[in-house]
Amino acid sequence: MTELKRVGVLTSGGDAPGMNAAIRATVRACIYYGIEPVVIQEGYKGLIENKMDVADARTVANVINQGGTFLKSARCQEFRTKEGRVKAYENARAAELDGLVVIGGDGSFTGAMLLEEEHGLPCIGVPGTIDNDIYGTDFTIGYDTALNTVVEAIDKIRDTATSHNRLFFIEVMGRDAGFIALNTGIASGAEDILIPEQEKNVELFMESLQKSGRAGKTSSIIVVAEGDRGGGGVFELSRAVEEQFPEYEVKVTVLGHIQRGGKPSCFDRVLASRLGVAAVEALRSGDSGIMVGVRDQQVVKTPLERAISKHNQIDNHLMKVAEIVSV
Amino acid sequence: MTELKRVGVLTSGGDAPGMNAAIRATVRACIYYGIEPVVIQEGYKGLIENKMDVADARTVANVINQGGTFLKSARCQEFRTKEGRVKAYENARAAELDGLVVIGGDGSFTGAMLLEEEHGLPCIGVPGTIDNDIYGTDFTIGYDTALNTVVEAIDKIRDTATSHNRLFFIEVMGRDAGFIALNTGIASGAEDILIPEQEKNVELFMESLQKSGRAGKTSSIIVVAEGDRGGGGVFELSRAVEEQFPEYEVKVTVLGHIQRGGKPSCFDRVLASRLGVAAVEALRSGDSGIMVGVRDQQVVKTPLERAISKHNQIDNHLMKVAEIVSV
Amino acid sequence: MTELKRVGVLTSGGDAPGMNAAIRATVRACIYYGIEPVVIQEGYKGLIENKMDVADARTVANVINQGGTFLKSARCQEFRTKEGRVKAYENARAAELDGLVVIGGDGSFTGAMLLEEEHGLPCIGVPGTIDNDIYGTDFTIGYDTALNTVVEAIDKIRDTATSHNRLFFIEVMGRDAGFIALNTGIASGAEDILIPEQEKNVELFMESLQKSGRAGKTSSIIVVAEGDRGGGGVFELSRAVEEQFPEYEVKVTVLGHIQRGGKPSCFDRVLASRLGVAAVEALRSGDSGIMVGVRDQQVVKTPLERAISKHNQIDNHLMKVAEIVSV
Amino acid sequence: MTELKRVGVLTSGGDAPGMNAAIRATVRACIYYGIEPVVIQEGYKGLIENKMDVADARTVANVINQGGTFLKSARCQEFRTKEGRVKAYENARAAELDGLVVIGGDGSFTGAMLLEEEHGLPCIGVPGTIDNDIYGTDFTIGYDTALNTVVEAIDKIRDTATSHNRLFFIEVMGRDAGFIALNTGIASGAEDILIPEQEKNVELFMESLQKSGRAGKTSSIIVVAEGDRGGGGVFELSRAVEEQFPEYEVKVTVLGHIQRGGKPSCFDRVLASRLGVAAVEALRSGDSGIMVGVRDQQVVKTPLERAISKHNQIDNHLMKVAEIVSV
Repeated sequence: MTELKRVGVLTSGGDAPGMNAAIRATVRACIYYGIEPVVIQEGYKGLIENKMDVADARTVANVINQGGTFLKSARCQEFRTKEGRVKAYENARAAELDGLVVIGGDGSFTGAMLLEEEHGLPCIGVPGTIDNDIYGTDFTIGYDTALNTVVEAIDKIRDTATSHNRLFFIEVMGRDAGFIALNTGIASGAEDILIPEQEKNVELFMESLQKSGRAGKTSSIIVVAEGDRGGGGVFELSRAVEEQFPEYEVKVTVLGHIQRGGKPSCFDRVLASRLGVAAVEALRSGDSGIMVGVRDQQVVKTPLERAISKHNQIDNHLMKVAEIVSV
Repeated sequence: MTELKRVGVLTSGGDAPGMNAAIRATVRACIYYGIEPVVIQEGYKGLIENKMDVADARTVANVINQGGTFLKSARCQEFRTKEGRVKAYENARAAELDGLVVIGGDGSFTGAMLLEEEHGLPCIGVPGTIDNDIYGTDFTIGYDTALNTVVEAIDKIRDTATSHNRLFFIEVMGRDAGFIALNTGIASGAEDILIPEQEKNVELFMESLQKSGRAGKTSSIIVVAEGDRGGGGVFELSRAVEEQFPEYEVKVTVLGHIQRGGKPSCFDRVLASRLGVAAVEALRSGDSGIMVGVRDQQVVKTPLERAISKHNQIDNHLMKVAEIVSV
Repeated sequence: MTELKRVGVLTSGGDAPGMNAAIRATVRACIYYGIEPVVIQEGYKGLIENKMDVADARTVANVINQGGTFLKSARCQEFRTKEGRVKAYENARAAELDGLVVIGGDGSFTGAMLLEEEHGLPCIGVPGTIDNDIYGTDFTIGYDTALNTVVEAIDKIRDTATSHNRLFFIEVMGRDAGFIALNTGIASGAEDILIPEQEKNVELFMESLQKSGRAGKTSSIIVVAEGDRGGGGVFELSRAVEEQFPEYEVKVTVLGHIQRGGKPSCFDRVLASRLGVAAVEALRSGDSGIMVGVRDQQVVKTPLERAISKHNQIDNHLMKVAEIVSV
Repeated sequence: MTELKRVGVLTSGGDAPGMNAAIRATVRACIYYGIEPVVIQEGYKGLIENKMDVADARTVANVINQGGTFLKSARCQEFRTKEGRVKAYENARAAELDGLVVIGGDGSFTGAMLLEEEHGLPCIGVPGTIDNDIYGTDFTIGYDTALNTVVEAIDKIRDTATSHNRLFFIEVMGRDAGFIALNTGIASGAEDILIPEQEKNVELFMESLQKSGRAGKTSSIIVVAEGDRGGGGVFELSRAVEEQFPEYEVKVTVLGHIQRGGKPSCFDRVLASRLGVAAVEALRSGDSGIMVGVRDQQVVKTPLERAISKHNQIDNHLMKVAEIVSV
């Protein structure tokens, strides 16, 4: 067992519900194992600017049910430079950190990997992002909450979708990965789902609209993964549909950052608690440069390098399920 | 007390949470008073197309907690014509309706007024719309639920609004009336609120951004009542801000029809139950051409004509409260 | 206009959702009017123990959407004595408080009244309690949220109430006043409502069970206002029913303190914002010994003495509505 | 591939959120594969009483987001007899059912197994129960939703738990299995969790109360799995604590059937959609007497016999996580 005096914890990148639960578990696992926990504000920026405090169990009281991250999260240009990372490391050393827990997505893990390679500071990644696009874990922290947020929103639209010849477009997050769109599309009974992974592009969607003769039928709900121009692309699509199919009335909802917030679900809180504890236990075992994740309900470890370079694939059976249940 | 054999009920116009509770109360009040309730599908369209059924208490079982309206609601061009209303009236007479309860907004009330004026069918209006813009009642059915829906959405954005120099624009409904924007802006702690009633236009908002020197401060949330081009206007605003103030990162959420759905709040269900009962009691008292509403917690009656022609005004003290609490 | 240097604010008694919004509005209204706000921890106990801090706008950032009260609330035996109030007053004077805003229920207002009578410290009451039993305001802060909490809970029970011959008892708060039970009973479509104000006692309920021959029908939901032995009485009732009617399967839910928590509804936040501002404006106008409330959507003032000694009555029409909609 | 003309689907046992999504997926998978789906009311009772209807895609429109089961679920004494099952089988044969999908827990699976053994009707089990106590699947349908329901309830209590020396007991479901208590205890930051699997009995809890000297500290939340006397045991515990530790004020919440209802979470809807489709695909592959479940994100099959006789075990690491995060 590696002797550890102090361990730092930070959140980085886009925030995600459950990050607070992960910080809390990291802090309390430190205390449980006789290590002094150090909380770092604003991600790598706080490491560079030396915004660190020794924490105790009270520091993380009443945060488990809060969305966002109470340590804040900032993008940090300086940390992308070698000089920035030197500063960060020197502060870490001055603060006597024997290890660092980084809660975030692949950008954050790249930073952790470099800090470890260049300076030998043991770093453990904890996957916190709503996008579920990290290799080495079945679920990322925040993903389950985001799914529920989207589904609750679409449920409300379904309530009102009683008129005829209406198309409701719902834009959800997922520029590169359609996990959110596919799962929430199935769960909300969407009539169609447009995701980056699938060939069905806009032309095909238009064709299917034409064929379906949906005109004269009840309303349809279409879930669209955010395209090139985050938050706006769906309006272009809606205008194109209205031009080609004037018989439809098209209504648009852009969920935007609503998906990043909200009280974390039970699932995300338990996942975050497990992974926060596992991160500290990994440092105690002498691990470094790895991410802790959950596969088949067990905690597993993946080198940060692999976690970053590979990606979870959309499940083919799930794509077929989507097709089947929308008959 | 007027003897009534049968009373019809329909929902018309944009749907609103709580309409089902109002239908249920109307139906059950009929039964309680020995009147046969008749439910009419799809608003005035169903009256013209003779889509009517005698209902009993079970017809409205388990609907009180459902969003939308199980009778559906459709816009009906034909009913705007004299001929259409003749058809509607003939069906009503054939169905032996001695009165009609119309749940909807001012468009729906105009129809009810004409039906009554031209054919003498006693009509009672029940204010059901999320916009709260009907004169003669402190609250319309659905308004309270819509407010909660918007506030819950903004709360989630607030969770994530920890980064610097970010502006979050949230577009809410209210082309003509800023009730939703003003109340949800106060309730969510928005830094600014843009409503149709207030002179503060976009230029002034831009000026205030400039003065505030919000740059370097934490994020701001701006609630915007839907402008000319429903669902899209806020993107133009966001682009204008980004051009003039490149230091801001602007994020947009367009809530859209989410605001029309959702399980009705307790407030809306109780309001709807009271007004549904009151509508039937009004018919029994011989009233016609009036709307039932609630003022100072009491049921009050207003001629449909006045309910349509006048409008609730934004409360000046509430505007000041908004200014004060955002210091 | 009275010149005020400093104004204190505290929460007292059982906590209620929206209290944070009321504190926030009080603090920001002080700042707006050039007064220094002082926040007092743990109610009157904090006044006696001198737990006070000058606040600024940031002190109340991000609290508007939090349940409970961040200033905490404690019962304080010592403040009920003359000596205790002397200490409290001396601390208030030392802190240069020119007025005090007390957010709470009638116990808290009694304290405020005595402090004012005995020592001349201007006190303004703000009604914050889920019970809605304060005279002088149509609504107390927290009441609307509590109603929604109860209704959401009963909705879930309704989902599962598909079996035959089941009685579900739901115990809600309201030892002396049936506002919560009556309103949530109507809103959840309860088959029966047992409240303190109504003569229908347990025997009558038993008789009605017998007559109704509900046996063989689908499930019934009965909302019961908390009786003599908070949190337990409903079990005695359930056992009595099971003994007398063995054909029923009885299931019990005791909501308990769930009703005091939760994110405040939009309604409660706006109400709290208005009343917090109004309390400071009342002090500036030279008022003292009064409570600010809302009647017919307007801010009104009521002497604390009357607010305490009188009670809102259950609305008779609402009782009839309950009867009518459960046919 | 086995040729199937018709497949029946029923829900049985205690209902669970997501059952509707499973019915819907079964029905639509039938249609997709050219099979006629038959929906059976009230579980095995409906099979015996011949309450069956051929369904189409519209039959299951707008049910995916509803709690409970629209087919209803009833306990059926008669089906436990050989004669009852003969009747059931004869009806199934008369209806030309080539297979049966049974959505429920282990009691329901026992029935399916007997029906298959005695009469050769191919039966597939789909695990639907909030208790998560079925072997052969990582998650049962409804479990995730129940966890969220409990956590949301405890969150509200946490909001109000600001006073000193208070103990809040929350009774949750789980007579035999502590999955709900353990997971929600971790997720809500409970100070203690009492589950059947753990030795820590009431005496030990009392000792720990004594040692902890929690007196004088802030409030504690204790999650208790439902004991011998469903819905009442926690009151006995609370009285025992109050007698031995008069310095504590004890508050009790009994969640009861709230846990069985509510809109299903996204997770449960997707799980239910996958398993409903998988059940039909299993019948087409010639499977019989098996349950479909999900392990490591893949659909897996388990003989009904094993699904019934074995049980999922509480995860030891999770028990340790619970201990660590409550330091």
